[in-house]
Amino acid sequence: MKRAEIKVYRNLMGDNDLWAERTKMLLAKKEVTLLNLIGGPGCGKTTLLEKASLKLSGQLKMAVLEGDIETTRDAERLANLNIPVSQLLTGGACHLEAKMVHYALRDLKLDELDIVFCENVGNLVCPAEFDIGEGAKIAVLSVTEGEDKPLKYPLLFREAKSVVLTKIDLLPYLNFDLSLCLKNIHKINAELPVFPVSATKESGLEEFVCWLLKWRKSASKLK
Amino acid sequence: MKRAEIKVYRNLMGDNDLWAERTKMLLAKKEVTLLNLIGGPGCGKTTLLEKASLKLSGQLKMAVLEGDIETTRDAERLANLNIPVSQLLTGGACHLEAKMVHYALRDLKLDELDIVFCENVGNLVCPAEFDIGEGAKIAVLSVTEGEDKPLKYPLLFREAKSVVLTKIDLLPYLNFDLSLCLKNIHKINAELPVFPVSATKESGLEEFVCWLLKWRKSASKLK
Repeated sequence: MKRAEIKVYRNLMGDNDLWAERTKMLLAKKEVTLLNLIGGPGCGKTTLLEKASLKLSGQLKMAVLEGDIETTRDAERLANLNIPVSQLLTGGACHLEAKMVHYALRDLKLDELDIVFCENVGNLVCPAEFDIGEGAKIAVLSVTEGEDKPLKYPLLFREAKSVVLTKIDLLPYLNFDLSLCLKNIHKINAELPVFPVSATKESGLEEFVCWLLKWRKSASKLK
Repeated sequence: MKRAEIKVYRNLMGDNDLWAERTKMLLAKKEVTLLNLIGGPGCGKTTLLEKASLKLSGQLKMAVLEGDIETTRDAERLANLNIPVSQLLTGGACHLEAKMVHYALRDLKLDELDIVFCENVGNLVCPAEFDIGEGAKIAVLSVTEGEDKPLKYPLLFREAKSVVLTKIDLLPYLNFDLSLCLKNIHKINAELPVFPVSATKESGLEEFVCWLLKWRKSASKLK
């Protein structure tokens, strides 16, 4: 198999809000939606993208920007599925900033795309503070992390447009109270839709993808 | 039951290295060891402390500083075990800094203590960059996070004096390669001791506590 070529962008920082604004203008012109996936390390963001991409195939043309501190392995996993993917390496920084995302977006073939997922650095805290020009932030929380996390890291859950609750196949082996988790999420953000998902068992993905398509449609009508 | 009184410190920042140095001098004088526990959100730091405290009881007198962005629930969990505990709230910041730790330490009865565990904010990235005056950083990684994390977040594994690999009771239900994880850790830091632990099933704790006692002894001899 021919190894996919992955572009790598390194550590471009600078006037975040200005670059976020430029990105929003660019994406509005191109009618492309940018989603900012935020969650802790190992919560299952890449696996979610792998499996969601299969459900979206034939409906939306997608690309992925992979944010990491070091290594290109997440980008390689997605490139193996023939998804256009670029790697953003922060070189130590704990979050993505708008300038790096903007440069990477400009190099994608935006005219051929509908949606771009940006997988942020694995971190529940800092990425929530930075607008990268996205249409929506999506929170990814694994059930292995515990039901108290929305209360302990409230900013992300305030900012997000939906939550994907991953690894629910592990629920039988955990001391995790799903209804308490939902209550905690809704204490922070009363209307937030939550999608319990097991990406490895491919359950719950339909509902998330369905919401995504609907949300995208209503967001583009608002413009 | 009388509710334990928990002191709460908020968002004290400032000249980190200076405060770390002051903490080191204070702790050397008092012969108290400070350990800086660092790991992602929900990796099991508080449960590890709960269970390790039972093993240490009768051997070392311990206290805990609980770092969080918001909420005091982790401190309450430990206070219920009659461990002296203070809560450090960063008010949004993604890591603890030395000044806040110093103030909280000064208010503990250090003459009556041997060891203080400081549970940092749940974050694999930023806390590794800040010296809080600790004797050692200890990395906490859950097997649910995946075996690639040491390569993706190398700084912590370079800085740490040991790794506690938590939630190993979940291994039968995960696609996790333990020997690959160890290999990845040792690629970053060849001699790093790793302790596979299930705190809920109370397995592997003896070995970690044993290392801790031995490390503490050798560190105090070096002074």
